[in-house]
Formats: sequence, C-alpha cells, structure tokens
Amino acid sequence: MKNLKIGLCGTGNVGYAFAKTIINSKALIEKNYGLSVSISLIGARKGKVQGLEDIHTVTDIYEVPKSNDVDVVVELIGGVEEAYELAKASLKNKKHFVTANKALVATHSKELFKLANENNVHFGFEASVAGGIPIIRIIRDGLISNKINSFAGILNGTSNFIFSKMADENLSFEAALLLAQEEGFAEPDPTFDISGQDAAQKTSILATLSFCKHAVIKNIFFEGIDNISPLDINFGKQLELILKPLSVGIMSTESVTLGSFPAFVKKNSLLAPIENESNAVLINAENVGSTMYAGPGAGAKPTANSVLSDIMDVGDGKIFNYEKFVENPLFSSFENFSCDHYLRITVSDETGVVAKISTLLAENNLSIDNLIQKELDKSDGAIPLVIVINNSDEKIIQKTISDIQMLSEVKNPISHIRILEI
Amino acid sequence: MKNLKIGLCGTGNVGYAFAKTIINSKALIEKNYGLSVSISLIGARKGKVQGLEDIHTVTDIYEVPKSNDVDVVVELIGGVEEAYELAKASLKNKKHFVTANKALVATHSKELFKLANENNVHFGFEASVAGGIPIIRIIRDGLISNKINSFAGILNGTSNFIFSKMADENLSFEAALLLAQEEGFAEPDPTFDISGQDAAQKTSILATLSFCKHAVIKNIFFEGIDNISPLDINFGKQLELILKPLSVGIMSTESVTLGSFPAFVKKNSLLAPIENESNAVLINAENVGSTMYAGPGAGAKPTANSVLSDIMDVGDGKIFNYEKFVENPLFSSFENFSCDHYLRITVSDETGVVAKISTLLAENNLSIDNLIQKELDKSDGAIPLVIVINNSDEKIIQKTISDIQMLSEVKNPISHIRILEI
Repeated sequence: MKNLKIGLCGTGNVGYAFAKTIINSKALIEKNYGLSVSISLIGARKGKVQGLEDIHTVTDIYEVPKSNDVDVVVELIGGVEEAYELAKASLKNKKHFVTANKALVATHSKELFKLANENNVHFGFEASVAGGIPIIRIIRDGLISNKINSFAGILNGTSNFIFSKMADENLSFEAALLLAQEEGFAEPDPTFDISGQDAAQKTSILATLSFCKHAVIKNIFFEGIDNISPLDINFGKQLELILKPLSVGIMSTESVTLGSFPAFVKKNSLLAPIENESNAVLINAENVGSTMYAGPGAGAKPTANSVLSDIMDVGDGKIFNYEKFVENPLFSSFENFSCDHYLRITVSDETGVVAKISTLLAENNLSIDNLIQKELDKSDGAIPLVIVINNSDEKIIQKTISDIQMLSEVKNPISHIRILEI
Repeated sequence: MKNLKIGLCGTGNVGYAFAKTIINSKALIEKNYGLSVSISLIGARKGKVQGLEDIHTVTDIYEVPKSNDVDVVVELIGGVEEAYELAKASLKNKKHFVTANKALVATHSKELFKLANENNVHFGFEASVAGGIPIIRIIRDGLISNKINSFAGILNGTSNFIFSKMADENLSFEAALLLAQEEGFAEPDPTFDISGQDAAQKTSILATLSFCKHAVIKNIFFEGIDNISPLDINFGKQLELILKPLSVGIMSTESVTLGSFPAFVKKNSLLAPIENESNAVLINAENVGSTMYAGPGAGAKPTANSVLSDIMDVGDGKIFNYEKFVENPLFSSFENFSCDHYLRITVSDETGVVAKISTLLAENNLSIDNLIQKELDKSDGAIPLVIVINNSDEKIIQKTISDIQMLSEVKNPISHIRILEI
C-alpha cells in the first residue's frame, strides 16, 4: 500500500481537527482508497500538543519542510508572510504543499504555482475557498470542457450569518455581529470579514480558476457590509428581495468583471435559501449551463476534510500544473457592471422632492421600477424614500447617486444596494 | 504530451455532442491539462456519421474494444444487454470503460467493478447520475473522510419539470407531460420516468457510492408520479409546501432506508427553488455537514461533459477501485422511514365523517398537524378533506390509510404524499 507522510504546521482549531481526521479516518482511507496516510511530524511553536503527544513535534516550523520523513507539508498556521516562507521552503524542497490559507493563495498564488511546477510537486488549496464545498476540484476536474461564463456566490459565512439574523430576528447590524461573535462565526476583531476583504480574497481565487487568468485582490471591486441598516432589509422584504453578501465574476470578450458586495436577490433565487453561515457558488458554463454548490463555508471539520481531499490528490499521484492552467493575463473592470439598483434616500418631508429626484433620474436616462414612500416617525421631519431603478451600469448609477446626494432635501448618505438576477 | 485514444460507441444525441466536445475542447484540454485526447474509432451500426466523417468508423460496435488503436471505450448506446456485453468485452481487453448508462450501472455495477479491478482499468460513470453535476467525483474525491449519513435529491428532471409546470401554470398531469414531451424533457414513451424507475436506478447508484455498500434497484422503495392531482399541488401551496420528485437514502446502524417518490418539502427548503428539468443532491456527512449540488440533470452537452471528466481521470492515471470501495453488503428497509404525511381523502358530505377519521388516527396514535375541509363543488356530494399528520413511520401510516379507505364515507383512493424536512 502506498504510504504518505504528512508534516503538519499549525495546530489551532483547524490543525487539530485535521490531525484528528487523519487519525480517525486512517482505516477508512486505507480500505476505500488503498492509501496509508499518517502525520509523521508536527511543527508547533509551543511544542507538543495535547491529544497529539504521540506525534514527533518540533517548535521550529521551518524544520518540517526539511525533514526526510515528510512527503507533504500541510500549512494551517494562517497569516501571510510566515506561511509564504513555509510554502516556498516546502516547494523548493520538493515537498507537496497543501494549505487552507486564502490570504496566502490570494496574495502569492502566481509565485507558488510557478514554484510548484518547477519542482514537480502538487500545490493544493481546496480549503481556501468555501470551506467544506469541494469547489476547486469541481471547477478543475468536473467542468473541464466548459468555458466558464460567470460565477456568483456567497463566500463569507460571517456576513451571511449577520444578514440572516438581521432579517429573521429583526436585529441591528451591531446586535447580529455580537451574536455571530458569541456563536463563533465572527472573530473578536471582525474587520477582515465585514470590510469585505475576506470575500474579495476568495473571489480572486475563484476568478483565477474559473477564468484561467491570474486575479489578485486589487482586481476585485469590493464593499463592506457595515453600512446595511435593518430598514434596507425590511424594505427588501416588501419588494420580495433578500439581502446576501455576494461575490460575482463575469467574463466578457474584453475584460472580467469582479466584485464582492452586499446585494439583493429575488426570493426565488437559488441563493435565497442559503442562510446563516452557509456558503454557495453558482457557476454558469458554456456546455453544462448553471450548476450550484452549497455547504458550510468554514468550521474546523469541513476545512480539515477539504485539506484531506488535497492530500488524497497527492496520494493519487496528481501534480496539477496550475501555472499552465492560469497563464493568461487578466484585465478587470467594474464600471460596466450592470444591474438593477435599490436606493434608500432620506429626504425632508417637503413637497417637490420626489419630482426633483425623478428629474435627475430622467436626466441620467434611468427609469424607476418601483417607489416606496413611507410615512414613518416624522419627528425629525425626515422620511425614507425607496427607489428601485431598472438596469444601469456602475458609471451612471454612481454619478446619479452623487447628483441626488447633493440635493438640499437629502439628509443622510444614500443607501445603495445592487439587485442581482441570479 | 500524454495521448489518449477514445473508441466511441453510440452516436445519438449524447454521442454526437460528446464527439463535438472532444473536437472543440482539444486545444483547451491540451493547454490546461497537458493531455491530448482524440476519437480514434467510432462504432455506429449505421456507419459513418454526418459531421464526423473524418473518424474511422465500424458498424460492429464489438470491434471497438478489440482495436489496438483504442485506450478507452465510451459507451453511449443505451439499453442494458448490449451495453453490458460491450462493457465486459472492453474491460477484459484492458480498455478503460466510460458510460453514461444508468440502467447498465444500476443493473451490473457489481460485476463491472470486479472486472475493472481484475483488469486494472478504470470504470467511469459520472454521467449516469445527475447529468451535468459532478456528483460521483464529489462523493468519491471531495467527501473523503466523511461517513455519509444521508442524501436527498431530485434525480429525475422529467418529473420535476412536470410538477413545476403543474404548480406554476396550473396544468393537469397529462397537460404537463405533453408539454415536457414537446420541449424534449420527456420521451415519447415516458413510462420509465413517470413510473419512478429512472429515479430508482439513479438512487441505487448514489446509495452504492454514498454508503459504500452495493445497492440495486430491488433495494429501492419507489412510487410513480402519475397519481398526483393538481388538487394536491394547490393544497400544498396553502400549506406552504412544494411538491418534488425526491430520492432519499438514510444510513442507520442496522440498515439503509432507500426511497424515491413524490414528496412535499417546506418552501424554505434548499430543494424548493430547484425547478423544471434541474436536478439537485443534498448530502449530509459526518464531518462536513450538509452540502448541496444542483444543475442540469440531463441534456446532451452536460452529459458529454461528465463523460469527458471521466476521460480526464483516465488521462490522469486514475484507476479507482470501486470493487474495494463498495464491498460491504447492504441491508435495506423502508418500513421504518418516518416523516410527516399529507392525506387527501374524498369523503361524502355527511356529518360525523371527520370524527370517524379522527378516531381511526387516534387509535393508531397519530396526531393531526393541520386539517383543511374545503367546500368545493358539491354536485357529486363529495368533498376533499386534507389532513397533515405528524411524524409517523411507514408501517403505521400505511395501516391507517387502509383503515380510513375502508370507511363507507370515503369515495376515491386516498391521496398520500410524504412531507420531508429537508
């Protein structure tokens, strides 16, 4: 039986779950796949790990890629710079390298793909996007003959959890975030998730594979989720729209449109029932048409399983040449992205304000699909006006929003949410 | 560059689409995967195929597995017996064998897995279940460390199309079937689809892989879809339930529950928005939790793509030992399957009938979750009574239904639809 020895760096939640998965699944994998896998070495700064005392452990993680007793290095330490050093050291030492680190892949995939190819070893990163969903192998191995036209997905479980709780339990953004933190779906410092950076990194990885062109985070237009008010979620409900943290990639002849932002979907969208911490990816490809993949976006065990699936690729002798796969240059642009738009404008309760806004919309050749004017508590003399605008591209809608914002009757920053037909 | 020569048997819709896919994707596959694929020989009873005249063609399909110019035989002729002969001849001649034929796999997988293993060649059948969704490789390669607890899916696109049209356009079963035939989603003889046999075959293949135990069609409890009335779909809407053709597999310690039948799902189910000819599979696994995969269930191009993904496995050197993977025996049973139930009982409009039915339910320890008594057109003195019954297993619900059916006030056969919490 083929034998594969793993050097594991990082023994936090995911690392520990991975080690336990290997130990618990060893017999199953031997029987079902004819492969013997074991962890031969652990790199952990603090030394021996409780529950994994039997495994030889070094405190210098850079010892791991040097060991003759290691075939594949699994990086679960997180962060970018140390992980990058470890990846380079591993690949140069002709060790296969498997990581769950989206920041590493989003930042350094180009160099790492090249180094893996030069050293004829496998670079696996299934766990870096959409945790438990085997989306990398689906794109790579399942949709082979397909030119992928577009993808749309929910890639940040924290944001999806927050929007779900705001909608279902009528919570404020702050209360929903606190709940996410309590339940372990948001970090103590949630900046990375709620600023949209996490989703943007994952979007760049998905885009790279989907379009076979190297995307990096600066190619992604992204917005955070912290400006969303319960008002918007409730107006959405009236309009049969559901708010989701969406990531999209659309291929056109000249360029690729890449974005990651809160957006409304129709209530019959396949993405509508994807709730709480779940992730999903919808892919539209030339031959197969639309397919969707949904599941847990994070969590130690789902992530550990995805890491294991990469290990199994290595056991299978797979050395995928990502450098060759994604060698084309990428031109990205967001300004031609076109969709319907939801605007919530807080206006002073004076006659004529709707007419002024309508005139500005008409001047920009925009048509109104729906308008809600709600007589809420008018103690401050301000009322929300919700307008749904038919299909407009980014350039025009942004100009129009700043035109409307300048009207003296407009009180607060306008809330703008894109509406996507997916 | 590695070179793979394909012998294609069958040049109907799928076979032709597959040949065109190979021709059109040749450059893409060479660039992205470093593999040269070509069709070196066609087996077609009627001889040369229009549009594929350049490819050497023989009229005796059994010549194909004998050819020295063929590495992998692709079977797209359909039917069981000839396909089985072709499969055996191919494997014995040490040719890899790839098929889209669910009937072949459902009927003969045990022998074919064995033969493939003995001859050290790959047996690929990705296209046999859920056409364009790479579900076989997801279970096999993506969910490795997971003991799969259960699956639930929509595996028959024809039935799903018919239910969708009945619901959306208020059509009768017959009218929806006619529309499915007109649009090419149902065969001129639709028996195989509407009897539930097609879904049952696919269920047996999914069960075999999910639970690593050999399932055959006789292990599957299945029901057809032709007894469904628009009345049931409309009562379902009132109860916020949506009718779907479902296939389920549930693992328990003693046995596996396998079934394929029309069932209601709640309107917020992940399966609710899977409409028309689409398929979907929801898998619940020990480590990953719930994941869902959705897409086209049939169609020449999606099927051709799945066939190609198997070819790529062969190009990768993959020879998966399915015989070893599914060597455990299977014990299946449906009588312990437990869920809520919808009953529509046509009763004569007499006082006391609801009391009689309630008494029978109470005697069987069943509780009523919902009851709708509708004063419809009473010209024939009969009214429909809809009862939703809380969680009951098959043994009890079947006994109760036959008890109720025997009441003199009950006019027509009782309509019984299971309600699944997925």
